[in-house]
Amino acid sequence: MKALFIPFLLTACALCADPLPSWNDTDAKERIITFVETVTDPASPDYVPPEERIATFDNDGTLWSEQPMYFQLFFLFDRVKALAPQHPEWETQEPFASALKGDYTQALAGGDKAIMELAMATHAGMSASDYADEVRAWIKTAQHPEKHVAYTDFVFQPMLELLAYLRAEGFKTYIVSGGGVDFMRVFTEEVYGVPPGQVVGSELKVQYELRDGVPVIIKQPALDFIDDKQGKPAGIYQHIGRRPVFAAGNSDGDQQMLEHTTIPRNNADKSARLGVLVHHDDAEREWAYDRKSHFGHLDTALDTAPGRGWLVH
Amino acid sequence: MKALFIPFLLTACALCADPLPSWNDTDAKERIITFVETVTDPASPDYVPPEERIATFDNDGTLWSEQPMYFQLFFLFDRVKALAPQHPEWETQEPFASALKGDYTQALAGGDKAIMELAMATHAGMSASDYADEVRAWIKTAQHPEKHVAYTDFVFQPMLELLAYLRAEGFKTYIVSGGGVDFMRVFTEEVYGVPPGQVVGSELKVQYELRDGVPVIIKQPALDFIDDKQGKPAGIYQHIGRRPVFAAGNSDGDQQMLEHTTIPRNNADKSARLGVLVHHDDAEREWAYDRKSHFGHLDTALDTAPGRGWLVH
Repeated sequence: MKALFIPFLLTACALCADPLPSWNDTDAKERIITFVETVTDPASPDYVPPEERIATFDNDGTLWSEQPMYFQLFFLFDRVKALAPQHPEWETQEPFASALKGDYTQALAGGDKAIMELAMATHAGMSASDYADEVRAWIKTAQHPEKHVAYTDFVFQPMLELLAYLRAEGFKTYIVSGGGVDFMRVFTEEVYGVPPGQVVGSELKVQYELRDGVPVIIKQPALDFIDDKQGKPAGIYQHIGRRPVFAAGNSDGDQQMLEHTTIPRNNADKSARLGVLVHHDDAEREWAYDRKSHFGHLDTALDTAPGRGWLVH
Repeated sequence: MKALFIPFLLTACALCADPLPSWNDTDAKERIITFVETVTDPASPDYVPPEERIATFDNDGTLWSEQPMYFQLFFLFDRVKALAPQHPEWETQEPFASALKGDYTQALAGGDKAIMELAMATHAGMSASDYADEVRAWIKTAQHPEKHVAYTDFVFQPMLELLAYLRAEGFKTYIVSGGGVDFMRVFTEEVYGVPPGQVVGSELKVQYELRDGVPVIIKQPALDFIDDKQGKPAGIYQHIGRRPVFAAGNSDGDQQMLEHTTIPRNNADKSARLGVLVHHDDAEREWAYDRKSHFGHLDTALDTAPGRGWLVH
């Protein structure tokens, strides 16, 4: 995809001549528009009634950038730095020690386990509303270390147009991402037009209690759900309860979501479905990466795409 | 509440003279209408923008009946009977043996553990789509053993009017129930006008896989989440991501949801909120029960209601 970083603009272009003005690949644009016109045309055999028009989007690398690492990791590292004075032990304890030195590669050498450790150490035991306040304050002020723009300005204009176009055509748009659900919810409505109830993500367990008579939701030091790979169709089932007719992703972590969306269930299942894979090929304006990238690793899904008829763009 | 069992009818009465014609308690009706008019009036200090108009409803005992036991239990027992020929060991093994004899009280003597055992034995390992087909077939044909009507005709007309009225006033209506989420989703859209993505319930874990190249979601023999008591605010957090401004329930299992909805978070939090407790007092047309009932036990929530300003009806 040729990426464009125009500060966020939600465009509802159902009535415009061109609902996807930033899509400069006319084949891709035509394929999407033909799909949408087909499933919304009551006279078409592929007509999908409005209540079944479910569209799911990955976030990292699909709606906004994910290089040089997932943006939520910058948030975690910034929290580690902010909390370090209260944790002198972190100076020698990994992954915190490397995080404090700014050596993020080393800090993340432990993979998902290291990320979970950072998340738990910085946020378990916090109330959900304090956590949301923290994310809100951070996302308003933090800047991407290389591009020097706010992270929420680092969203892809073509995808914003696609979200708005689908909604104007009666689709309900969902985010289905490996990112933390309560991290994303702070900004998805303003940035993407996707309300909190339409965000599916990874979750820590939470507990409700009354503290001094006041209700609080407390983030627990336990993982509840990882919304990645096989987890994405599972999350879609538990949260949306309907099979999408459209899904967009950009990595192997999205392969199962696109399969779940597009593979016919039996010979009689001829319903129109569209899977889209965003392929990052614009090194000038963003980054070019796929099979060798640690974040947004795109390998088996890229090989699978042609056979499944997914639009790679 | 005076219950009315008029076969289901979704009434959008925003423009009618009376949006709640079945509410024969004029005080209760007025209180609800005043609340809705206040939070939807842009000139009111209590104005709530449409995206924050979240209303949550318990299901069993709030939207439909729950006597002599939760309707989903009738489904489970019917499944036990249907599957019994493949399980000769059930003839002597509890809770199945009692279930097969029709002694439901004895079958449920083990409480939640017995219910989980029945659910696992009848449905773990099934695909989600087979499960939905089974629920769909059952709910179309099964009849309430005492009232001899379909379970979906055993819904409360005043609550259908309330759901429709809130939606007509820009609310998003959710079901937040201890019932199985994928059991309820089969009928909530048709019966209540609540789409699958707005149903929060108890969950078994699920797993996504490809079987012979075809995607399936398989129900696992493991509990994922119980959406009752403290679980309800937790489920609201994970699924909706927003604090409701309106909540309705009928039992102690709903107390935390009503507290979460209505208790101010601090001295500055003066937002208008409404909690409603359905009190079953109509032994003629439904059942009268509260503190001594096993299903829909209403005791501490009833004591809590006056102090919290909840509408008991």
